[in-house]
Amino acid sequence: MVSIPTLTDSAFLQACRGERPAHTPVWFMRQAGRSLPEYLAIREGTTMLDSCFRTDMVVEITMQPVRRYGVDAAIFFSDIVVPLKAIGVDLDIVPGTGPVVAEPIRSQAQLEQFRDIEPDDIAPITDAVTALVGELGSTPLIGFAGAPFTLASYLVEGGPSRDHRLTKQLMYSDPELWHALLARMAAIASQFLRAQVEAGASAIQLFDSWAGALSLADYETYVKPHSATVLASVADLDVPRIHFGVGTGELLHSMGDAGADVVGVDWRVPLDEAVRRIGPDKAVQGNLDPTVVFAPTEFMQARAAEVIEAGRAAKGHVFNLGHGVLPATDPDALARLVDFVHGYETA
Amino acid sequence: MVSIPTLTDSAFLQACRGERPAHTPVWFMRQAGRSLPEYLAIREGTTMLDSCFRTDMVVEITMQPVRRYGVDAAIFFSDIVVPLKAIGVDLDIVPGTGPVVAEPIRSQAQLEQFRDIEPDDIAPITDAVTALVGELGSTPLIGFAGAPFTLASYLVEGGPSRDHRLTKQLMYSDPELWHALLARMAAIASQFLRAQVEAGASAIQLFDSWAGALSLADYETYVKPHSATVLASVADLDVPRIHFGVGTGELLHSMGDAGADVVGVDWRVPLDEAVRRIGPDKAVQGNLDPTVVFAPTEFMQARAAEVIEAGRAAKGHVFNLGHGVLPATDPDALARLVDFVHGYETA
Repeated sequence: MVSIPTLTDSAFLQACRGERPAHTPVWFMRQAGRSLPEYLAIREGTTMLDSCFRTDMVVEITMQPVRRYGVDAAIFFSDIVVPLKAIGVDLDIVPGTGPVVAEPIRSQAQLEQFRDIEPDDIAPITDAVTALVGELGSTPLIGFAGAPFTLASYLVEGGPSRDHRLTKQLMYSDPELWHALLARMAAIASQFLRAQVEAGASAIQLFDSWAGALSLADYETYVKPHSATVLASVADLDVPRIHFGVGTGELLHSMGDAGADVVGVDWRVPLDEAVRRIGPDKAVQGNLDPTVVFAPTEFMQARAAEVIEAGRAAKGHVFNLGHGVLPATDPDALARLVDFVHGYETA
Repeated sequence: MVSIPTLTDSAFLQACRGERPAHTPVWFMRQAGRSLPEYLAIREGTTMLDSCFRTDMVVEITMQPVRRYGVDAAIFFSDIVVPLKAIGVDLDIVPGTGPVVAEPIRSQAQLEQFRDIEPDDIAPITDAVTALVGELGSTPLIGFAGAPFTLASYLVEGGPSRDHRLTKQLMYSDPELWHALLARMAAIASQFLRAQVEAGASAIQLFDSWAGALSLADYETYVKPHSATVLASVADLDVPRIHFGVGTGELLHSMGDAGADVVGVDWRVPLDEAVRRIGPDKAVQGNLDPTVVFAPTEFMQARAAEVIEAGRAAKGHVFNLGHGVLPATDPDALARLVDFVHGYETA
């Protein structure tokens, strides 16, 4: 009798649940995207946002790194501003810049545009998820959304910001508007994640890309309650919830405590130290410096081995980079990295 | 008999030495610069780099915030690439971008251009320091330099970088060239600091702006020895040595251990926690979030009080922002902040 692998056997889901899979599972943030020539080819002539709303493109782009690398999970190709675009917010993704919002948020009246997501708004996306789940078979699909703080930062700044000055100014000066804005973002992120899981995603990742700009005290006062709302909103769906931000060494415990099953860690904190901060009851994800894949193969492998060894301190460990794949990354280096992680002897 | 205040009475120098001054001393990183209308006026028609080599402008720009705010220290107006420009490196400071290097460093042969600084190279600068010390009287002048890693990052990337990819690639792939480059940067930073102190500066700050991009292990292997060289090189001059970088929560102990007397801390780590990491034998500097000065005055004052209270855990505390003054900052808010810090009851 031939045993057909099922999602339950997935090394990725096992590690997320704190079980010990036969090999260390690995996927990469931004594995689908600019580092792949096949991605650049398919994107030619289509804007980023349009491609996120075209079922065929989402499916193909999501599958590309799975075919190429044999990673242990797919992550649904999208952008964190997609749910906002889906409800009609006037924004665009400008190449070389990032999301740009036409009318930055300054007043309570502007919050009206942030209505609930209706199924029709995101039908091309949920269709893509359903198609992907069929095509992926025993490889799980990770759904994702931007966390309330990061979404709000784009909306308040009008685009990417290094200092998040306007965002923090609003947060400090008008906490009522701030919390109303974040509550709306939490509702939208929750609806977006729920739709993805109901369409077949096996896990979710909540990206709080910019949370590392905050002190722990500010994070806990102004941000954590809203991230917790999002994570709690999908608790009944029984899929692992991954929560990640960059430069969040001071926030790791709190981000886990917001309701994550798996805490993503960037390269600044070794995973064994991260486990000490997060606590023993959660799995971790990470955390090879994304620039290490530009180093000679032996150097990269030695660093990957250190990550795997440090990850043994955790209840479960999903190997990843400590941030997204850099656009200049050589896909062959990532292929070698996947092979190395898969071949590394488990304890 | 009237007692004339001398440098020895300086609250800033006392706090740096771990003594207890009568009030908490305060200055601001980038206190001289774009947030001041009088700065924008004097800079009109002169490039950033030209202004750094004009004695009269350096003196005037350095004095502007001292006159306006009554801060407890002046910091010599310059840019971290100035010593490189002084020895003839082909670089420019592009408005809105930052330092741009004509020929990014890729090979050992290119290191030849990084010759030692001769007194004539920086005569306009040392002249400015001497003039400033006379004008400042009992207010100390802080000299400064960019740390070897941050200087090298500009030289390898060719300009500012978010991911420091080329820098780390060189570091990981060609450690011999890397260490040779950093050794040259350390020599130049040492010479630049020494010249400033010999011309009359009462303290120095070594800025490792980008060190927070590194894990602790990478910092200790590739960077710390060279920063330590710089800090050791001015040890005999008997001036306090401040060492600062952004996002360096994981590195604080190591940066102190590199030979600092005062460790600068950004806003992500409360000062009492920073003291636990750094150890009891050093003073700290920081660490109000620079965006807090955009909040209502009472909010700003409450946060400043928290910083002062947390700073009591340290042997000595110099109040500062956790990063440079943002260009959009209202100078009146900074004036109110100085008054608040000066009026805050000391224990």
